[in-house]
Amino acid sequence: MFFASDNWAGAHPLIAEKLGKNASGFSAGYGSGDLDKQVYRTFSEIFEREVAVFFVATGTAANALSLSSVNRPGGVTFCHRGAHIVEDECGAPEFFTGGARLCPVDGPLGRMEPALLRQAIARYPAEFVHSGQPMAISITQATEMGTLFSLDDIETISAIASENGLPLHMDGARFANALVALDTTPAEMTWKRGVDILSFGGTKNGCWCAEAVVLFDLDKAKEFAFLRKRAGQLFSKSRFISAQFDAYFEGGLWLETARHANAMATKLADAIGTSGSARLGWEPQANEVFPILKKSDVERLKAEGAVFYDWHAPVDFDGEIASDETLCRLVTSFATTDEDVERFAATLAR
Amino acid sequence: MFFASDNWAGAHPLIAEKLGKNASGFSAGYGSGDLDKQVYRTFSEIFEREVAVFFVATGTAANALSLSSVNRPGGVTFCHRGAHIVEDECGAPEFFTGGARLCPVDGPLGRMEPALLRQAIARYPAEFVHSGQPMAISITQATEMGTLFSLDDIETISAIASENGLPLHMDGARFANALVALDTTPAEMTWKRGVDILSFGGTKNGCWCAEAVVLFDLDKAKEFAFLRKRAGQLFSKSRFISAQFDAYFEGGLWLETARHANAMATKLADAIGTSGSARLGWEPQANEVFPILKKSDVERLKAEGAVFYDWHAPVDFDGEIASDETLCRLVTSFATTDEDVERFAATLAR
Amino acid sequence: MFFASDNWAGAHPLIAEKLGKNASGFSAGYGSGDLDKQVYRTFSEIFEREVAVFFVATGTAANALSLSSVNRPGGVTFCHRGAHIVEDECGAPEFFTGGARLCPVDGPLGRMEPALLRQAIARYPAEFVHSGQPMAISITQATEMGTLFSLDDIETISAIASENGLPLHMDGARFANALVALDTTPAEMTWKRGVDILSFGGTKNGCWCAEAVVLFDLDKAKEFAFLRKRAGQLFSKSRFISAQFDAYFEGGLWLETARHANAMATKLADAIGTSGSARLGWEPQANEVFPILKKSDVERLKAEGAVFYDWHAPVDFDGEIASDETLCRLVTSFATTDEDVERFAATLAR
Amino acid sequence: MFFASDNWAGAHPLIAEKLGKNASGFSAGYGSGDLDKQVYRTFSEIFEREVAVFFVATGTAANALSLSSVNRPGGVTFCHRGAHIVEDECGAPEFFTGGARLCPVDGPLGRMEPALLRQAIARYPAEFVHSGQPMAISITQATEMGTLFSLDDIETISAIASENGLPLHMDGARFANALVALDTTPAEMTWKRGVDILSFGGTKNGCWCAEAVVLFDLDKAKEFAFLRKRAGQLFSKSRFISAQFDAYFEGGLWLETARHANAMATKLADAIGTSGSARLGWEPQANEVFPILKKSDVERLKAEGAVFYDWHAPVDFDGEIASDETLCRLVTSFATTDEDVERFAATLAR
Repeated sequence: MFFASDNWAGAHPLIAEKLGKNASGFSAGYGSGDLDKQVYRTFSEIFEREVAVFFVATGTAANALSLSSVNRPGGVTFCHRGAHIVEDECGAPEFFTGGARLCPVDGPLGRMEPALLRQAIARYPAEFVHSGQPMAISITQATEMGTLFSLDDIETISAIASENGLPLHMDGARFANALVALDTTPAEMTWKRGVDILSFGGTKNGCWCAEAVVLFDLDKAKEFAFLRKRAGQLFSKSRFISAQFDAYFEGGLWLETARHANAMATKLADAIGTSGSARLGWEPQANEVFPILKKSDVERLKAEGAVFYDWHAPVDFDGEIASDETLCRLVTSFATTDEDVERFAATLAR
Repeated sequence: MFFASDNWAGAHPLIAEKLGKNASGFSAGYGSGDLDKQVYRTFSEIFEREVAVFFVATGTAANALSLSSVNRPGGVTFCHRGAHIVEDECGAPEFFTGGARLCPVDGPLGRMEPALLRQAIARYPAEFVHSGQPMAISITQATEMGTLFSLDDIETISAIASENGLPLHMDGARFANALVALDTTPAEMTWKRGVDILSFGGTKNGCWCAEAVVLFDLDKAKEFAFLRKRAGQLFSKSRFISAQFDAYFEGGLWLETARHANAMATKLADAIGTSGSARLGWEPQANEVFPILKKSDVERLKAEGAVFYDWHAPVDFDGEIASDETLCRLVTSFATTDEDVERFAATLAR
Repeated sequence: MFFASDNWAGAHPLIAEKLGKNASGFSAGYGSGDLDKQVYRTFSEIFEREVAVFFVATGTAANALSLSSVNRPGGVTFCHRGAHIVEDECGAPEFFTGGARLCPVDGPLGRMEPALLRQAIARYPAEFVHSGQPMAISITQATEMGTLFSLDDIETISAIASENGLPLHMDGARFANALVALDTTPAEMTWKRGVDILSFGGTKNGCWCAEAVVLFDLDKAKEFAFLRKRAGQLFSKSRFISAQFDAYFEGGLWLETARHANAMATKLADAIGTSGSARLGWEPQANEVFPILKKSDVERLKAEGAVFYDWHAPVDFDGEIASDETLCRLVTSFATTDEDVERFAATLAR
Repeated sequence: MFFASDNWAGAHPLIAEKLGKNASGFSAGYGSGDLDKQVYRTFSEIFEREVAVFFVATGTAANALSLSSVNRPGGVTFCHRGAHIVEDECGAPEFFTGGARLCPVDGPLGRMEPALLRQAIARYPAEFVHSGQPMAISITQATEMGTLFSLDDIETISAIASENGLPLHMDGARFANALVALDTTPAEMTWKRGVDILSFGGTKNGCWCAEAVVLFDLDKAKEFAFLRKRAGQLFSKSRFISAQFDAYFEGGLWLETARHANAMATKLADAIGTSGSARLGWEPQANEVFPILKKSDVERLKAEGAVFYDWHAPVDFDGEIASDETLCRLVTSFATTDEDVERFAATLAR
């Protein structure tokens, strides 16, 4: 019953297998091998246009490098108050940009309220050097709250970006989970809706370590190569990333693993919602479930082997949490089994 | 006949296999899983004392983070003019330290001349703010020239470090190759000779991607954890590094692969030295061979499938290279075969 | 009727005169001249202990360098949401620290609420690398809202700093105004209450350009000298700062100019408070007055030559501002005259 | 007999006087006052085209900000080995750019050898990320060796800059000294010869503190304003800089002070050259004289009150310095008197 995080799982068997198959033989390194190039082409196919792809080591690196590629002095990036770049990256975006600031914007369940976003940007009048200047907008899809931006939501945000001449970054650490939940295409969820830079995550969805920055503006690619190398993020034996992505995309494996994780989350949510003894903080839309559990149940579940974290309620959470209750986070992955969920449900019900 | 670099090889079969074995099951991430901890203990055993180990994505990151852990304003790191941190890291050490400078020092074949090192440090009088201040000394073992610091050489450098109150960093991208060539122990080659921080490389010696910073000063560990995370270098599914290192150390595999690579280099050097048509730029001591080849031979060898790079002569190279000759670099690895070397030799001889 | 800012005034005649007197003759530069040293001694006398003094070009530089002297990777500085370092420095604190973050804390009229400060710090559990780590607390005395921390208030904040092992920085851009308003001594208002680093401003109180960082921890001085030089903040002809400070302190001129500015603010506030047509947003405690004026009065006053800015209401302002009203900021200085204030009052009353 | 540096002098009487005259009255700050704007116009007149002018606190800041305005990841600036940015700025250029590197190029007496410059740039092939990428060329006029680039020399360097698509920066800490020595115009010595960015120094030539960055590419101005503010280099009471420059330019004072300083250097050089007991290291071209003195004479001169520094011989100095001799540096300024020079000559002759 491992629901602590989708990165507690290992690698999907097909990904592990592909890695093994590519272990022998010689190949050019630093992202210029044959398999690397093949995977770049696959990315372009998937996104239905030519894109520039840069493998990096972590999602934090993907996000921080993405923002550094649109860096400005006194720059301010607008994002949700609970965004991963704000809460979970130890200041990497600020470090990679030499000090550009993140401006947290409120909004329900991980999505900035458009009016508040506009208001936040408006506090930076052009050429008023004292307060700094807008630099980018960043959204997370799926959000840290396990919710989604609909295609219209993305369009709304990207319109604000356009109005203000700002690039739009998407943190897609759980890109696949959002994609299958919306039943849309990568193109529709990104550049066709105005996204300029994408942190594309494979790790949480079945890879060992397969993260990439995808640039839709190819003019940025030359400079990005230097940004990545300077950050110690250019793998020498890059095919060990390519091989993972190769398996990841082959036969739509990535969609399948994401669908499975989402389905497990739905099943978990249903079990919790109908348990009688617990309820959902809000409806899950991807692979994260945030139930409000009795503290005694939490203790009991953990004692029986369930692994998951207590979670702090989002600033704008308007539900109530009683003093004998706790908001928790449960994350499912490709490796979550029906049995795990059923055992969790049964334990909770007991 | 792939001699372009030791990172053109893939992963050693035992390492690939171990990775496969660890693909299933759940485990805590971010370096805190059971296998992670076991590998940390192995590091401590290997170094015969407690050490702090931090996995990172690349050798560049290991070096740059190492230097950032001893950062000072206006800081200057003294290293060989041809060091990897100077020549091959796109300014990563400067970037990670927010601008600390590298001061290139000359010396024969990758090793700083102690007198020149002393002289370089002496140009920074204490508290004279205009020129900046000494911050660290960094050596590479084995060097970029395929040569070695003897234990006495290391001691000489570390004495200079001590005299000046400077930490000593060792770039051990090819640590194992040096270790087996000197027939010594990790402890003797590092902290027993005054090394404070080590970039420990596994990638060039048979891993996919297994680099670590080893701190001998445990007091630095707490801060280093933040440095690494902030740099986007903290892997979530860290066991994919642990698994590699686990296999790497098991039964002394790492020593075996290094011995093999070195032996292949020796064999290659012998063949070249006795070929009649080519000669060695200098004697190889680890797994890199720098022959001076006739340009026509270079062309012919490449046409027959040999892969290797032309190389720029080191500043202090005192041999002669005729106008119809080229200095080249050939690198061997765990994956280099006797057949490859023999075929190269035969082709050259033809 | 110039109330736009205390930096719209020029230099006090005695300061201008002293500068003129020191223009001739030769003297060592870079802060090591005789007059420089004499002024350092004066600082130590004023603070009743040995202090290390570093002249810098601007208050922004003083603050940013102060924070960079206690820098940590992933570091977070806690300060009021409306602090100058947050609102008015174009990200200089983040830039000088290579990305350390400011965490805005709420509290009434420029002063962090101690409970909220504790809560903010508590969100950074030790060694949890994902969120970063506490690095410093910064308060502004007098605040940007023209209010004061009482000595007890400072002690309360410094107790929180101590509990958490954090250095306490004071932005004293309007240090003198606070000092005379509290009728206390520099020592009592700083190190005797736990302040570790002080940005000491002279510019707003009658100097041309005289800002200094005062370190109470002398061990930090050696490194600070490099931090300052590296930031391009080491003046060559440093006596042009010393001369200003020399006049500033001579015969208590600085206290006199601050008292005058404060008295002018009180007079202005009284006039506004009793005007019938306007009211105070809150009681001024130093040299800034924040009245709520009718928009028609604002227009009229400006037309008649009054210079001042509309101001955004602080987040935690609990007064009401009608739709035909505006919150404004009026700042007085050594150069504000009774006549100016009276003319403003008369114009408002008309 | 103060020849230690041109910044040991104070301010020229006319500059001090002008500052005094501007001390009273109110004026907008942060570079937007009437006098500020008037001075910007004067700069444009002097340079015979519209330029963007940014006052900063120090020459170090001017240089470092200039380079940060053309910053690139892994960027490398080519400059003379003995340049101020290399030797005397405590890593400020690296700090302001977040780690861009300086590549020292050799050449006679402070001027890069064009062939060596070309060679240095050529070591950075386009898109080869490992070594970084060229970013700028920087020259110093007059050089740190007291020599000059002729207009043709500047053109030669700027041609290399153009060929490589690199901006050309000029460190003009002693701009006026060079200008009058070459008997040319500011326009001819800068943008008409391909200079893109100029550090324009007034401090060494009679101001207290008056340094500016002059941008010939107006498109860079908007971003530069943020760069400067973020670096804590935006003065609030900016008229104290404007007033200095106003006097500096008025009636050609700056040319007069520079001519005087140069003439004093020539006189000093003549006296040394004909002294019999000393000789010149090389011919001075501006306001710095580098004599080779007997150590006994150095001692004697200092005992009699002469103030000057021993100097390290430049790397490419091909003269001989005997073991009982020392290379010294003597700098003249607006404040150097005939009497000082004559007394020095007489003392030396004795």
